[in-house]
Amino acid sequence: MNDTRAEYLCGRLDFWDSLSERQQSRLLDGTTISRYKKGSVIHNGVGDLGLIFVRRGRVCVYTVSEEGREFVLLRLFAGDCCALASLPMENTGFPVLINAETEADLMIIDSQAIKDICKTSIKAESFLRQLTMRHFCDVVSNMQNMLQVSAERRIVAYICRESDRMGTARIRTTHEQIARHVGTAREVVSRTLGRLASSGALELERGVIIIRDKSKLRKLM
Amino acid sequence: MNDTRAEYLCGRLDFWDSLSERQQSRLLDGTTISRYKKGSVIHNGVGDLGLIFVRRGRVCVYTVSEEGREFVLLRLFAGDCCALASLPMENTGFPVLINAETEADLMIIDSQAIKDICKTSIKAESFLRQLTMRHFCDVVSNMQNMLQVSAERRIVAYICRESDRMGTARIRTTHEQIARHVGTAREVVSRTLGRLASSGALELERGVIIIRDKSKLRKLM
Repeated sequence: MNDTRAEYLCGRLDFWDSLSERQQSRLLDGTTISRYKKGSVIHNGVGDLGLIFVRRGRVCVYTVSEEGREFVLLRLFAGDCCALASLPMENTGFPVLINAETEADLMIIDSQAIKDICKTSIKAESFLRQLTMRHFCDVVSNMQNMLQVSAERRIVAYICRESDRMGTARIRTTHEQIARHVGTAREVVSRTLGRLASSGALELERGVIIIRDKSKLRKLM
Repeated sequence: MNDTRAEYLCGRLDFWDSLSERQQSRLLDGTTISRYKKGSVIHNGVGDLGLIFVRRGRVCVYTVSEEGREFVLLRLFAGDCCALASLPMENTGFPVLINAETEADLMIIDSQAIKDICKTSIKAESFLRQLTMRHFCDVVSNMQNMLQVSAERRIVAYICRESDRMGTARIRTTHEQIARHVGTAREVVSRTLGRLASSGALELERGVIIIRDKSKLRKLM
């Protein structure tokens, strides 16, 4: 009766087959499937949610500074798995928040189930350690990128990436969203987009950016 | 005969007592004690060094971008332990380099010994996972700080911290070093220090910064 969940976890957790039936059912007991609407809050940073798997859609994992500035830690796509929602703020010193950027289907294994399995399965511990290490490396690369590359280049790269991903020259997004993704201020995004529009590379409509000259844009990356 | 190493590891590794004698001697076989001169390279980013323990001195763990800019990931002090030297660049996408900022005594458990123990000790796996998580949180906090706080505030905070730590108003350092630590350009450091010197907060000598008015400095933090 737990077919969907068991099948999915079996394909995603390389240690699944090494678990006893009892361990497998402990994990399944703690596993839920949920659908989130575009823009909805998946995790508000309070308590620990657990291990999340993105089955469909796009999810943003970010943190907020005391001054209220948001920084994207990771973006997750279908097939991705994330352990950061099991980090309570007492341990990190910063909140981990998660939003659905598009409608998203998630499978979530609650923290307690993960903890229980990790007590007895060395392969589960090892899986989590490797996942944590991957998150670490991804976040360092992202942050390094933010610190080094000028805001303009990051904004242009973001627009090109979104366009490639969606297969369209019309990108629905707000200046606020771009600012959050590339780690800059909204004003910097507005100014940069204005400049790119004057140069003929882009056209701006309310809530939409239209790429007019992609080769010009690419030269700025 | 391995007394020093065994005693030290016993106090540092919360899983030590859970290991069999055989596992303990496997770890000790892979453990070395080394002294590094101030400024020397502990790890050049090639291959994996292992788990390092700082017994004395100060160590800097950093990465270098393709453009040659350095970013400090972590600074380690006596008692600290670091797993990042066991990350080969193939896995991270960025090199992890380690330098001795002062003369430093390290104890290093080589990667293979760690791997061997992790195959059979769930507590060792769990220790490493928690250590990795702590590195992750520290690095996010550092980077967030770099992205948010102005270069001047970071430079002032760095100078005050160094002064407190060393218990002196005379700080031996170069503009290059400060730039690396706070994640900005050397020119920004020189300009900022010049401004702080004009205001009477600091005095600059070759290779030395002297704090003249600490309360003035603290107000800028």
